[in-house]
Amino acid sequence: MPSIPRDRENDYTPEAARRRRAFLAEQTGVELEHVGSYSFDPALAQGNVEHFTGVAQVPIGVAGPLLVNGEHAQGSFYVPLATAEGTLIASYNRGMKLLREAGGVTTTILDDRMQRAPAFVFASAREAREFGRWLDEHFDEIAEAAQTTTRSGRLIEIERYSASRILYTRFDYTTGDAAGQNLTGKATAAACAWIVANYEPGIERFFLESNFATDKKSSQVNMLHTRGKRVVAEATVPDALFRDVMRSSSEVMYRARQVSNLGGFMSGVNNNGAHSANGITAMFIATGQDAANVAESSAAFVYAELRENGDYYYSVTIPSLIVATYGGGTGLATQRECLELMGCYGTGKVNKLAEIVAATVLCGELSLGSAIVAEEWVNAHDLLGRNRPS
Amino acid sequence: MPSIPRDRENDYTPEAARRRRAFLAEQTGVELEHVGSYSFDPALAQGNVEHFTGVAQVPIGVAGPLLVNGEHAQGSFYVPLATAEGTLIASYNRGMKLLREAGGVTTTILDDRMQRAPAFVFASAREAREFGRWLDEHFDEIAEAAQTTTRSGRLIEIERYSASRILYTRFDYTTGDAAGQNLTGKATAAACAWIVANYEPGIERFFLESNFATDKKSSQVNMLHTRGKRVVAEATVPDALFRDVMRSSSEVMYRARQVSNLGGFMSGVNNNGAHSANGITAMFIATGQDAANVAESSAAFVYAELRENGDYYYSVTIPSLIVATYGGGTGLATQRECLELMGCYGTGKVNKLAEIVAATVLCGELSLGSAIVAEEWVNAHDLLGRNRPS
Amino acid sequence: MPSIPRDRENDYTPEAARRRRAFLAEQTGVELEHVGSYSFDPALAQGNVEHFTGVAQVPIGVAGPLLVNGEHAQGSFYVPLATAEGTLIASYNRGMKLLREAGGVTTTILDDRMQRAPAFVFASAREAREFGRWLDEHFDEIAEAAQTTTRSGRLIEIERYSASRILYTRFDYTTGDAAGQNLTGKATAAACAWIVANYEPGIERFFLESNFATDKKSSQVNMLHTRGKRVVAEATVPDALFRDVMRSSSEVMYRARQVSNLGGFMSGVNNNGAHSANGITAMFIATGQDAANVAESSAAFVYAELRENGDYYYSVTIPSLIVATYGGGTGLATQRECLELMGCYGTGKVNKLAEIVAATVLCGELSLGSAIVAEEWVNAHDLLGRNRPS
Amino acid sequence: MPSIPRDRENDYTPEAARRRRAFLAEQTGVELEHVGSYSFDPALAQGNVEHFTGVAQVPIGVAGPLLVNGEHAQGSFYVPLATAEGTLIASYNRGMKLLREAGGVTTTILDDRMQRAPAFVFASAREAREFGRWLDEHFDEIAEAAQTTTRSGRLIEIERYSASRILYTRFDYTTGDAAGQNLTGKATAAACAWIVANYEPGIERFFLESNFATDKKSSQVNMLHTRGKRVVAEATVPDALFRDVMRSSSEVMYRARQVSNLGGFMSGVNNNGAHSANGITAMFIATGQDAANVAESSAAFVYAELRENGDYYYSVTIPSLIVATYGGGTGLATQRECLELMGCYGTGKVNKLAEIVAATVLCGELSLGSAIVAEEWVNAHDLLGRNRPS
Repeated sequence: MPSIPRDRENDYTPEAARRRRAFLAEQTGVELEHVGSYSFDPALAQGNVEHFTGVAQVPIGVAGPLLVNGEHAQGSFYVPLATAEGTLIASYNRGMKLLREAGGVTTTILDDRMQRAPAFVFASAREAREFGRWLDEHFDEIAEAAQTTTRSGRLIEIERYSASRILYTRFDYTTGDAAGQNLTGKATAAACAWIVANYEPGIERFFLESNFATDKKSSQVNMLHTRGKRVVAEATVPDALFRDVMRSSSEVMYRARQVSNLGGFMSGVNNNGAHSANGITAMFIATGQDAANVAESSAAFVYAELRENGDYYYSVTIPSLIVATYGGGTGLATQRECLELMGCYGTGKVNKLAEIVAATVLCGELSLGSAIVAEEWVNAHDLLGRNRPS
Repeated sequence: MPSIPRDRENDYTPEAARRRRAFLAEQTGVELEHVGSYSFDPALAQGNVEHFTGVAQVPIGVAGPLLVNGEHAQGSFYVPLATAEGTLIASYNRGMKLLREAGGVTTTILDDRMQRAPAFVFASAREAREFGRWLDEHFDEIAEAAQTTTRSGRLIEIERYSASRILYTRFDYTTGDAAGQNLTGKATAAACAWIVANYEPGIERFFLESNFATDKKSSQVNMLHTRGKRVVAEATVPDALFRDVMRSSSEVMYRARQVSNLGGFMSGVNNNGAHSANGITAMFIATGQDAANVAESSAAFVYAELRENGDYYYSVTIPSLIVATYGGGTGLATQRECLELMGCYGTGKVNKLAEIVAATVLCGELSLGSAIVAEEWVNAHDLLGRNRPS
Repeated sequence: MPSIPRDRENDYTPEAARRRRAFLAEQTGVELEHVGSYSFDPALAQGNVEHFTGVAQVPIGVAGPLLVNGEHAQGSFYVPLATAEGTLIASYNRGMKLLREAGGVTTTILDDRMQRAPAFVFASAREAREFGRWLDEHFDEIAEAAQTTTRSGRLIEIERYSASRILYTRFDYTTGDAAGQNLTGKATAAACAWIVANYEPGIERFFLESNFATDKKSSQVNMLHTRGKRVVAEATVPDALFRDVMRSSSEVMYRARQVSNLGGFMSGVNNNGAHSANGITAMFIATGQDAANVAESSAAFVYAELRENGDYYYSVTIPSLIVATYGGGTGLATQRECLELMGCYGTGKVNKLAEIVAATVLCGELSLGSAIVAEEWVNAHDLLGRNRPS
Repeated sequence: MPSIPRDRENDYTPEAARRRRAFLAEQTGVELEHVGSYSFDPALAQGNVEHFTGVAQVPIGVAGPLLVNGEHAQGSFYVPLATAEGTLIASYNRGMKLLREAGGVTTTILDDRMQRAPAFVFASAREAREFGRWLDEHFDEIAEAAQTTTRSGRLIEIERYSASRILYTRFDYTTGDAAGQNLTGKATAAACAWIVANYEPGIERFFLESNFATDKKSSQVNMLHTRGKRVVAEATVPDALFRDVMRSSSEVMYRARQVSNLGGFMSGVNNNGAHSANGITAMFIATGQDAANVAESSAAFVYAELRENGDYYYSVTIPSLIVATYGGGTGLATQRECLELMGCYGTGKVNKLAEIVAATVLCGELSLGSAIVAEEWVNAHDLLGRNRPS
């Protein structure tokens, strides 16, 4: 089968896209009619996609209002969720109602860092150890080399993990309103170039990545040390609200949580909560985040307490939430609108977005959690999720 | 802030969606013009979304042709990828070229099962143990109860994991061409209803989920025991091809792999490969899969060998790839077209799709892997990824 | 330096041991006077040690009585603990007092299996999958081949885990009163010999072990699937007892547990309890178990509940407790006496021993747990642990 | 059953021990004749054991000479191993022979730290975050408070891991020649007392331990960040030696390693090597280390390379090796002799001991690894391990 045609002059035009659809129709007999229905100038997608052919139209529903008591997000928000999973929006919406009545969700960003993780190989472990010390001594010069490639990134730490004759590092940066995977890549490559040029004893070999940043993957190191934002969402919900809004109770919620905590510990899961990935993914697609980051952003730590008065304290900590309000897919047509809907487009907004995501996640946790204990979960799917095969 | 308006009669109409956009504009001052530009009848989205308001338009590029030597997918395919990550499609495309020249990717589905995982709580560990035995003895009746709710699902096993006075189970089903999370939920609820009614000593409490199915999460139990499809993609690539197509070599690829393997073991990652989530997510969004499943579908095992003649044997095993060609979002307008493009829409196609996904993943692994060792990775991003903040 | 002398005729005599001590004194100037002070005939140690030179004299203290409500261990036991850790025995002893007053510890063995885990390598994944099916079909013949080498072992299952072109298996056996690592090794080697001889398509390569039995290592697969005995110890302790005996309370114990549970989930620990390894190791050394198995036997799942009346339900599940009452070091002089002290020497006793170990562990958990919350933990060490450097 | 008798005046006398044995004989009918055979004054065991009753006599064999090219251990050593596992010493001895002929084992200590890990609970996540900053600002005063309790310990870092309204910390110390678990406990308690007294906003609750030091347990956090010594042992072994000494070859060793690496990654093991716990445990018992630390000291990272000339580079990194040459059980009679045998007793020797342990481990890895690939492993057990049940 032939290669996919490209327009060498300018490949980001309606015509170039149309030609590709025609080519595919010729090759496969399939007309991409709906894929070809998009409302923006393909030039906008340059830097986001190659072989631009059209769009996936993913249904968006809106949940809310979501009441957030954050440091960056304060007040009520309507949250756009792009999904094809029936009941998902209804479930988050119900959780948002519960939390509104409980006074809202408190959100806090604990840490913020993005990394690229080169590994350096030496003749033996001793040379690797020596190099580690040298890195410490030359941090400022290395940071300066990294800095030459970026305006918004700043090198804040070089973590070190050693084994055998290899020194694994993690170059940690703050990255402003960008997610920062690419700028940290460039900055770290520049830093490594400086290192290689200046480390006198010499390095046998180095690799810009060796499974210690775990980009697009879930890992214990990122759950411990943060990748992107480490955000907490907390709320205290009176028992009466669980009974009125959710047909459950704080006590049975708490019992279920205990059993889930042990289950998660045994099963080796990266998230002892219920389904944070659902809300995160739907917000990511709606707002132009890299949805592949769901792999790592879906990790979470749930911690709950049943108070003496029956109140249920519930918190979810997302240790590696990767979001941007600038760059990447955030400037695409629908994506930008969805960010704007929450007042989250552009510079200076990324922490606000992170807090809204975390608050949304918490609403979804209490909603699904309630449904499970109310044994109505399956019925809810039955009622709303009609496109399902049985 | 007021609640989001719904049309109690029929909420899946252009008018209902328009009214919601108008409402949001009124509340937030943001016009969702592009979100409101979609090409299908909202009635189609019933069962996929609530509060339907419009769509996210995610750019689709096409990579290929991808040459697959599968048991279900055989021949060349053009693969639609919905993404906003610059260079992603170029990278997969380059990998597909390499693998075409190497004779294609061999794919094999090793296992196929979807689960729901109820936990049962008893007075003490002995009662929990007793119940486990009873489950074994009554498997047929339980399966029959589950079967009453589903045409395409079939209960094949009840896994058991015990601790304290709790028996955690995993009800494993085959689910035909559906992903099956919902049908297994319903079937297991029915099975549990039968169990509760028929287990004479009685169950203190049960929860339909307790972190042992780990839906939308990554877990060791699913990496060991499969959730969705367990698929392997394999290929053997001559050294000359690495040199010609990828500016790397099989030997340096292999060395990098060794360092990555150790890095991944230390960092506690769920995937010792490079970035399978990228290709999987882009295919998931394009074809109407539940992208939240990237959380679990992103786990992978890479195993490679450098052969004496310089050939590089490379394989990637995806232990919990969750895909559907029927139900869920697969019938939506653009999503269906993308499935049809690969001949993967509808019943009897799910294994074919799983193989194409796995083959695509392998291409991306060798492409990014080569870029890292060729130290050109960052430059590639520079050239193509222009929408990035620096 | 010269090789260590051996007596080719009979190396297990006082004279052979004496000659080695003399040789070492000559080489190093160090007289092994105390090492040479042992009370048994070295002939007894044949099969337990090579180059027998003398003994380590590890102090034994006794804790108890321990009240066990087991299925195999019933009544009160004095538990011998070999250790050099000050306060360890005092701490377990205190916990045993608490649990005696609470009515004893209930113990239950949930599962029992020992494995050897050969890996089989094939030309490609499909051949590996095919082989897996063949194993199922020929289970009886394989079991028969395994059986030829052992009286007490019985093959009960062949677990399968696949990736790439490799089939990892776990051959699970019951092993009577032996720990069984060696008999399963022999039986599995015999089984593999039969397999290799009878599998017509042929096996490219096989290895008798490939990190799936994880002997002497801790692993998720063993925590999920049991290695040795899976034992639970449970107890319900009234709040008043915590206050009287432990200077703590059930409520503060429970709060500390919640924080520990989350801590353990984050830190990636193999045991969310406190220090089961302490009691297990001390009992292992005293009773002739293989103390290297502490690596895997130290894994544990703690599950606790604070009841409405203030009672504290506490359980610890040990998923891979490896013990023997026959074979290995159990017949050595002091080791046998210690087993006899608990009525646990010889055949038919291994479940009893497993239950006593689990009950002991639970006592230690509540004791250290109480000490931590009573903030007296460090002081306790101060008072009793005088041999410590500060 | 009655309580165990103690001599309130002085419980560490032969008479007190004898009385306990008599008491036990009376209660159980079992005479602890061999347990009562020990060669040292019980006064020596004060601080090591309570209710001293006698000793476990664990057979000691000696392996060697072991050739070490360390920074602290240089030259040849005879290594005492206390064990009841037949073939263990023969296997290590064979590995030592191989490595002697290969020029010895190179050892390097990469890091050294011991921790106690208090958790601090606050009203909400923001207060926890604020407290974290305060810790940074007051590190010197906190260190000073810790220092008041210890001569040999020095606080070097306070690691912080946050989730929910809890700040988990790890107080890292260097501890000289002691293992240091107890001195870090005391020092951290003193530090916490100062913190509680001086942190003005106040702490809701704190616990001296919450599963982040993971004492006597295996954890990812300790594998990443070191507990005790982080030691590497490396060697390069010519293929000819594998053939001559081990009846294997470097190539087949390497192939087996690849399969083991993947097996270990899938099984979720804490050690991708073979059986480091065997050598470590036997050395720990012989030299008075706390054998319960095998739980964490058994973690290991193996990294190997097959060189072009057929040489096999092999390394094992032990990330949390906990050893002492002073304090604890090191001063007991036989234990001290065994340390002296290697020139490792007393102050200034702990790094030397750590290196000898690591070198020993490497020898055992290559020996068992060779045996597995030579398929002679089971036979070796057959020949030497005669005390085994079959």
